[in-house]
Amino acid sequence: MTNPAPTDHPVHPLIEKRWSPRAFTSASVTAEQMRSLFEAARWAASSRNEQPWSFLVALREDEAQFARFFGCLMPGNQPWAGSVSALALSVAEARGADGSPNKYAVHDTALAVANLIVQATSMDLYTHQMGGFDGTKARAEFGIPETHDPVAMIAIGHVADADTLPEDLRERERQPRVRRPLAEFVYGSAWGLASDLVS
Amino acid sequence: MTNPAPTDHPVHPLIEKRWSPRAFTSASVTAEQMRSLFEAARWAASSRNEQPWSFLVALREDEAQFARFFGCLMPGNQPWAGSVSALALSVAEARGADGSPNKYAVHDTALAVANLIVQATSMDLYTHQMGGFDGTKARAEFGIPETHDPVAMIAIGHVADADTLPEDLRERERQPRVRRPLAEFVYGSAWGLASDLVS
Repeated sequence: MTNPAPTDHPVHPLIEKRWSPRAFTSASVTAEQMRSLFEAARWAASSRNEQPWSFLVALREDEAQFARFFGCLMPGNQPWAGSVSALALSVAEARGADGSPNKYAVHDTALAVANLIVQATSMDLYTHQMGGFDGTKARAEFGIPETHDPVAMIAIGHVADADTLPEDLRERERQPRVRRPLAEFVYGSAWGLASDLVS
Repeated sequence: MTNPAPTDHPVHPLIEKRWSPRAFTSASVTAEQMRSLFEAARWAASSRNEQPWSFLVALREDEAQFARFFGCLMPGNQPWAGSVSALALSVAEARGADGSPNKYAVHDTALAVANLIVQATSMDLYTHQMGGFDGTKARAEFGIPETHDPVAMIAIGHVADADTLPEDLRERERQPRVRRPLAEFVYGSAWGLASDLVS
């Protein structure tokens, strides 16, 4: 199943194709693929080149390790996330090299994850980020220091048909994709006034 | 001037090509191009599909509007940012639809900006995000409500040769691009222990 974005203006195929499914096949990802994903994350931009991102990751094949990540997910995500090829946790370093708070820590971690997602999409992999995980449990499970904050759990894998999902998730998977139109969030001369470029 | 990332593992050309230059030509971007940039931002993922991102934007041709954005930049960015084709400001909505704080507001705004950057790169445009701007001034200038927070200023345009920069910025533009190696930020069984996938 694919689910391209119904765009109003032309965008690159990798942007159009990206989608956060819940239905994943049990196919594997290779170590080589995973290296390309993190290499893409590595080359994101960051404020003062602080590179505040880190990741913890396990492949599903590594059952004991994967179970530790899976066990941090909220119950709502567990019915579908068990078949993904890999689970990763993004982590942001809250302070910069000079010791002062880095207000772009989470922002720049998201830029790195976005790069990872583009790379995944280019390799026919799909991703699904989740805020629904227990950050306190993850911190204890993996020994994440107080200087760093768990940000999001990331499912990575091969998309499957919605039919493979538990019944209550199938309809949700087939819902039309919706977004606010450009004129509602691209402003020109003042807040709330749509830019001439998009109106 | 181009400046591809010196990667250790293969990544998609759009990831490799992305770079934040300071040298921009005075060429224009079209309204059509700008619509594709924001359309790409529109289709980013977000927590609960809250789409917490908004943008304010001006083309350089629209001199009076552009000056209002330029005037919010810190002095360190003004020597180079005057020739860019467009300046945009990303803005995050701090609360979700149910009124509770959206902890992913800035994160998801960055995901939208990352999509914009990929789209720009695919159209041979370059971007340079800046934390160096006066958010209080921007809030007053454009009437950004207290429910929303200015995040980053984004320069968009056509890359130029480093020779076009003021002398003190030229060397900086030509510095090698550096990032931490994967083994320093991709962990497996515990924090700080490099994943087998990257070691």
